[in-house]
Amino acid sequence: MATTDGAGGAGGRAGAPAGAGAGGAAARFVYDFDQGDGGMRDLLGGKGANLAEMTRAGLPVPPGFTVTTEACRQALAQGGRFPEGLEDQVFAAMARLEARTGKGFGNPENPLLVSVRSGAAVSMPGMMDTILNLGLNDRTVQGLARQTGDPRFAWDCYRRFVQMFADVVLGVPLARFEERLEARKRARGAAADTDLDAADLEALTAEYLDLAAREAGRPFPLDPREQLLLAVGAVFRSWLNERAVVYRRAHRIPDDLGTAVNVQAMVFGNMGPDSGTGVLFTRDPNTGEKVLYGEYLPNAQGEDVVAGIRTPLPISRLAQEHPDLYAQLSEAAARLERHYRDMQDIEFTVERGRLYLLQTRAGKRTAAAAVRIACDLVQEGLIDQREAVRRVEPQQIQRLLHKTVAPEAAGQAVAQGLPASPGAAVGAIVFDPDEAQRLAAAGTAVILVRPETTPDDIHGMIAAQGILTSRGGMTCHAAIVARGMGKPCVVGCDAVQIDLERGVARIGDVELPAGARIAIDGSTGRVFAQEVPLVDPETRPEFETLLGWADQIRRLGVRANADTPEDAARARAFGAEGIGLCRTEHMFMGADRLPLVQRMILAETEEERREALEQLLPVQRGDFYGILKAMAGLPVTVRLLDPPLHEFLPDEGHLAAEAQRLRQEGGDPAELARVERMLARVRALAEANPMLGHRGCRLAITFPEIYAMQARALFEAAAQLRREGVDARPEVMIPLVAEARELERLRRLVEETAARVSRETGVPLDCPVGTMIEVPRACVTAGQVARFADFFSFGTNDLTQTTFGFSRDDAEAKFLHRYLEEGILEANPFITLDVEGVGSLIRMAVSAGRAARPGLKVGICGEHGGDPDSIAFCHRAGLDYVSCSPFRVAVARLAAAHAALADPGTPAGLESS
Amino acid sequence: MATTDGAGGAGGRAGAPAGAGAGGAAARFVYDFDQGDGGMRDLLGGKGANLAEMTRAGLPVPPGFTVTTEACRQALAQGGRFPEGLEDQVFAAMARLEARTGKGFGNPENPLLVSVRSGAAVSMPGMMDTILNLGLNDRTVQGLARQTGDPRFAWDCYRRFVQMFADVVLGVPLARFEERLEARKRARGAAADTDLDAADLEALTAEYLDLAAREAGRPFPLDPREQLLLAVGAVFRSWLNERAVVYRRAHRIPDDLGTAVNVQAMVFGNMGPDSGTGVLFTRDPNTGEKVLYGEYLPNAQGEDVVAGIRTPLPISRLAQEHPDLYAQLSEAAARLERHYRDMQDIEFTVERGRLYLLQTRAGKRTAAAAVRIACDLVQEGLIDQREAVRRVEPQQIQRLLHKTVAPEAAGQAVAQGLPASPGAAVGAIVFDPDEAQRLAAAGTAVILVRPETTPDDIHGMIAAQGILTSRGGMTCHAAIVARGMGKPCVVGCDAVQIDLERGVARIGDVELPAGARIAIDGSTGRVFAQEVPLVDPETRPEFETLLGWADQIRRLGVRANADTPEDAARARAFGAEGIGLCRTEHMFMGADRLPLVQRMILAETEEERREALEQLLPVQRGDFYGILKAMAGLPVTVRLLDPPLHEFLPDEGHLAAEAQRLRQEGGDPAELARVERMLARVRALAEANPMLGHRGCRLAITFPEIYAMQARALFEAAAQLRREGVDARPEVMIPLVAEARELERLRRLVEETAARVSRETGVPLDCPVGTMIEVPRACVTAGQVARFADFFSFGTNDLTQTTFGFSRDDAEAKFLHRYLEEGILEANPFITLDVEGVGSLIRMAVSAGRAARPGLKVGICGEHGGDPDSIAFCHRAGLDYVSCSPFRVAVARLAAAHAALADPGTPAGLESS
Repeated sequence: MATTDGAGGAGGRAGAPAGAGAGGAAARFVYDFDQGDGGMRDLLGGKGANLAEMTRAGLPVPPGFTVTTEACRQALAQGGRFPEGLEDQVFAAMARLEARTGKGFGNPENPLLVSVRSGAAVSMPGMMDTILNLGLNDRTVQGLARQTGDPRFAWDCYRRFVQMFADVVLGVPLARFEERLEARKRARGAAADTDLDAADLEALTAEYLDLAAREAGRPFPLDPREQLLLAVGAVFRSWLNERAVVYRRAHRIPDDLGTAVNVQAMVFGNMGPDSGTGVLFTRDPNTGEKVLYGEYLPNAQGEDVVAGIRTPLPISRLAQEHPDLYAQLSEAAARLERHYRDMQDIEFTVERGRLYLLQTRAGKRTAAAAVRIACDLVQEGLIDQREAVRRVEPQQIQRLLHKTVAPEAAGQAVAQGLPASPGAAVGAIVFDPDEAQRLAAAGTAVILVRPETTPDDIHGMIAAQGILTSRGGMTCHAAIVARGMGKPCVVGCDAVQIDLERGVARIGDVELPAGARIAIDGSTGRVFAQEVPLVDPETRPEFETLLGWADQIRRLGVRANADTPEDAARARAFGAEGIGLCRTEHMFMGADRLPLVQRMILAETEEERREALEQLLPVQRGDFYGILKAMAGLPVTVRLLDPPLHEFLPDEGHLAAEAQRLRQEGGDPAELARVERMLARVRALAEANPMLGHRGCRLAITFPEIYAMQARALFEAAAQLRREGVDARPEVMIPLVAEARELERLRRLVEETAARVSRETGVPLDCPVGTMIEVPRACVTAGQVARFADFFSFGTNDLTQTTFGFSRDDAEAKFLHRYLEEGILEANPFITLDVEGVGSLIRMAVSAGRAARPGLKVGICGEHGGDPDSIAFCHRAGLDYVSCSPFRVAVARLAAAHAALADPGTPAGLESS
Repeated sequence: MATTDGAGGAGGRAGAPAGAGAGGAAARFVYDFDQGDGGMRDLLGGKGANLAEMTRAGLPVPPGFTVTTEACRQALAQGGRFPEGLEDQVFAAMARLEARTGKGFGNPENPLLVSVRSGAAVSMPGMMDTILNLGLNDRTVQGLARQTGDPRFAWDCYRRFVQMFADVVLGVPLARFEERLEARKRARGAAADTDLDAADLEALTAEYLDLAAREAGRPFPLDPREQLLLAVGAVFRSWLNERAVVYRRAHRIPDDLGTAVNVQAMVFGNMGPDSGTGVLFTRDPNTGEKVLYGEYLPNAQGEDVVAGIRTPLPISRLAQEHPDLYAQLSEAAARLERHYRDMQDIEFTVERGRLYLLQTRAGKRTAAAAVRIACDLVQEGLIDQREAVRRVEPQQIQRLLHKTVAPEAAGQAVAQGLPASPGAAVGAIVFDPDEAQRLAAAGTAVILVRPETTPDDIHGMIAAQGILTSRGGMTCHAAIVARGMGKPCVVGCDAVQIDLERGVARIGDVELPAGARIAIDGSTGRVFAQEVPLVDPETRPEFETLLGWADQIRRLGVRANADTPEDAARARAFGAEGIGLCRTEHMFMGADRLPLVQRMILAETEEERREALEQLLPVQRGDFYGILKAMAGLPVTVRLLDPPLHEFLPDEGHLAAEAQRLRQEGGDPAELARVERMLARVRALAEANPMLGHRGCRLAITFPEIYAMQARALFEAAAQLRREGVDARPEVMIPLVAEARELERLRRLVEETAARVSRETGVPLDCPVGTMIEVPRACVTAGQVARFADFFSFGTNDLTQTTFGFSRDDAEAKFLHRYLEEGILEANPFITLDVEGVGSLIRMAVSAGRAARPGLKVGICGEHGGDPDSIAFCHRAGLDYVSCSPFRVAVARLAAAHAALADPGTPAGLESS
């Protein structure tokens, strides 16, 4: 047998490892809770480190010990066989636990019962569930009955333990036990489990033990020591179970971390009226308000809360009914917040008047609460402003900006579920997650409607605008996952009856097939059997306070992509420091412009084309006037025309059908001629790979008059504004440059136009001209390109396409999901910037560009500009700014601050306070 | 006046500069021919340096001097004003020239006449033409008449001089003089210029002088000294004329070089029967045979040869008629070849029995002559083998391997297209590839005539003798495939109008039905509306000798791209050292395979797909067996399936029409179902940008069973061959890798297959697995990719597309021509590798790849592998080999040797001899 470290021994933590078998020294695999601390997550797992930290902080934690992740790794490496010394160390720790509790493991008189839980370094659902009350057998159950004075409870514990253990450790399906339970209930005419008495449960336990033995092909272990070792081994193996592996892949958690195992003495909240159990948040997790928040069930076990038979009391009631307990809880809450400097979510049990904290962790909170708590903690002097900024996840605050259902439509709801994740969404019903993925990839907004969700449905949830389930509670799978994604979600809406086979949902009185459009409001739980108008969100003052701190910390500028004066104004309101991408093609699409644009494209001579452009000029000038005005004093980067011309013409099939119809009906010959001419042009413009075709600056090399018109419109607008005393700051961006001479030529065109307008108007016009870097060659030859560029703006959508050789549409529809499922790519590179590939090219371009032109301004204006991970990269790569959609500006401001905080090289923008 | 250097003064060349005006020392701007040498091109221009070199070599060159490029630069820098001292130096040189010739400039008794010519450092047409007989005026013309005894000649010289001078120096349009000439001929009833007599010409000269003075607004200069200064100034200015500027821009010649001016004493070949003029090649420029070759016209000026009124004699006749002259010429030819160590093209004049060489240069020659001369010169000890290799242009020898149109028929061409693939072919027109296959199988030689070709036409292209398309550029589908097949091809011949419906082609004025016999010459782009005689290629033994020397010099290996045993055998015969790219998709296109491939694609389950693949296996195994056997002992790099699957299915429009027809005609319902199923699949497989879509290794990530089948087929073939004692050396290449994990996964698949086949057959199979590097991300992450790659092979076609973001098809049809015309790109990057962009990525990949895996083998297998400029880059970038079409192997061997010769870092493979 092993020598053991005394629980209070000085060598407990930092000293020599617990001894192994005679003759060989083994690693230390077991730590009592008071031997570890919160910094040992890697070794003890998150839960174990946390229990150790609580114990060290003097909080009343039931004693126990943690088997290390290292033990797990070694065991898995040798096919499950425990590393040498582990078994001995576990039993030594058990001995210490017996000493500390005064109970005996397997002692029928005063049995020590323990819980066994997995706990990896990274919080990770999908592994083994908790096993409670381990240590029960036919003899110790009697002791428990005596101790609690409640034989029914004791047998129920035993029954549940057998079932749990058989399921988790022996692999016996739960359903088999449920059958027995149902059978007995039928036999006894019992409606609920609670209608069974102690004798029923004793008999049922016997059945369970038989069943388990038969199914497992081995006797159910009645020796607590054997139970314990089997449970530890099962936790180890659960690291490799499929759900866990899938989860790790999805969350990019390395496969070789292993899990720790926590063994903890059971405490009982059902030992009388001075016992109880509950859950406590140290602040309101919905609003962030500084009040104790939670529920308490007197004389009950945690399971009773879950079973939902008795209604728990709000924590506030304790203040009146058990002021002593409330005082203990208040004191513990304050102590925990001081210790962890954050709002805590605590599971507690009171055993005969004594408070035990079973678990504490930073409490999950809504985005609004996160912001408020962070600000309040600064106010209370617990954290500084930098830490407050660090505390709020950029993705999370997006929720504060989520849309809601317009008040006038709120009454149209046809059903009410649980408000599982805030925000409102509108989309087409889909019942199948694969279908959701397909439709979303094709650009359709969808709402995933399911009885409930499972980890298998994740891809459908990602693809959907919102999620609606007919079952489940606030912590069901759908709810948790949707909140994590910041995606609107309504759960437990049983008014929604779903018939998956027929592919219809009945919501209230309405039967809706797949494809029917509905709306959900995840903030209120309302469901609408139709499309409803959504309105934009409103935020509290703390939000601006926090973003203000973020602004002082971040180095990256934040601009917005906006094509209209309205978007520009919105972006400015969200704090955008300029427009990083104003796309001019959207301006060509309006009903009043499209005919002019089409005339320009159909022109057969340069003259005809110039004429059409002449007519577009005032329209385009008006567009620019509005945007420049809305952004007065801030830069507006205008990208000249980018898409291939055929995007402005009708679809070939449509035109062909129209021509056919006109010919058959003998319609207006002039109209037929017009349609045929357009058809011929559409065919002439057709391209094998339009993404790589005649677009961007290539259009302007062949038809310079288009850019000349756009530049003139921009400069005339700027000149007019400046004459009106408005500080218009246009910047011209040339898209899709692959070769410096393209930019050289087009820059000259723009500058000549500026000079001409300047002469005509008498307004000096000095306008930076830069380029969008969207193809690898521009990155590789950036030194050349920079000679003609005042700025670079990375168009990471196209740059990702060309760097990978992935057509985004094709890739997402055909193979990208496989790449993600199989872990060939860790993230969708169109959502999170591919640092290794695209990122290397960006770094190359930044460095060569700045070497050729010191002070070159560099930004990013692809969709990645609003993605926190990508923003972090942009910071590291030394970019000057990111530009994203107006609704992502707040996220980007916060993410940029996070990036600065994570970068030790960044000078502090904000002193610690 | 200036002091003058004596012509024979010791200080003439290296001494003090010719003195300038009293009191100041000026730069030296003038060099007599005997003061310079061939190394002074920058200062004296090419022509001046050459004349100096000939003079120094003791060759009989009419004396003269050169005004330096520096003088030109200074003059242009000060608006045309001559730099100080130049005028004096010019007249001093004139004085020396007078002394040397014994004639006087402006001396009516014995006038010295000179030619004035431009001559830049780089040969550059578009600048000033020659002015002959400068020094003539109303008085000296009399002297010339007396000296030549030919007043008509003298006045004709004078007339022409006035016209030439007025045109070039005074800017009077030539047409104005031509009008006068015509008027006089009409007045005199003269048919030709020669019908005018001396008196006519005298009168005409007077008219010309009047005309010139009126048009120029100044008297025609009659003072020879003024004529000379004006002529020199005009040459200087001609550096800036538009044609010259455009030429320089197009040929990347710097604008600040300036031109030199050569002033040379006139000699006259028309001073009697012992005078004459001619052109001489020191060897036969057609065959390379060592005989004097050229033409001689007795008692004539060079202009008479050009005018074509008298028929010149072959040089060989001189041996009989003027043995003395022939001896002089032979002696001069021998001397020139010894001096220049190359075959020379000489212009000469004999004035009263005295031979003058007016110009000599390396003679243009046919490819055959180039090879023979290079080998003979080695034989003769004039050059070494390295120099011989250097003397033959790689592009040139391509011609030696193909049939050509017999010289006598060359004039019969009726249209001109792009010379897409060299060689000439004769055959019957077919418009339909199926028909081509049928007719060819029946023994008819056919030319496939199409607007353009697609992968669907391959079988027709294989069957045809040659391909003619009315559309497309040098890298269109037809061009690439034809070059790969070594098959004559003319593309983009828009003079050919093809009416597929009527089945006729109109070529020029001729309408030709299917079946009409035509001819094409893919080396020149000529198209013939009839059969023409062809000449078979003949390679003489020198060809192999030269390539043998090249092989000893080059460092790059040369492999071929070949997909069939026949191509492989041909490549081997041409000297290929392996197959660098064996495309397996062509194997899928055969009539016996396509149905199986289609069944595989239409399969709805993995099982169905496996079944179809099962049937493909033996077929594919047979393909590999043949190729591996043909290349026994040499590596064969097999690229697994690359193109998107829809390429193996019929065209959507075709299927839709077929389905329509079947429905209307109430055809076989099973057939209709089949067509509809295929149509649905084609639509499901359709992609927005197929180049960037579901293809290459992406296919194998989603359908691993395809590569598994191919790998099995390959390894089974290799195992069989090895059992038969044949040294089969397969290498597997995975296409389109963008991320190392793609390769990791597929490499594992291939290795597992190899291991399985090895176990089944008992034959050890170790097979290198590598990847084609075709997207920028693979270059940027090459260090990662190399961990799983035994070799890299750059697929520069796709890499060029993705690096530029250019779809080749779209770019060439829509904008690339403009890029080339406007000099935005210097060369078509699909023909000549883009060193700056694509090349940088390649260098990056080579360096990171070799760092991660020392000894990584690196090659190139894109079209660029057969392009000499691109091969030079591959050498510099340190690649191990290039792979090109079998017919380019000889070119590549020579180009690789050239690259090594141009690279001082390359160890000499061949000792100088």
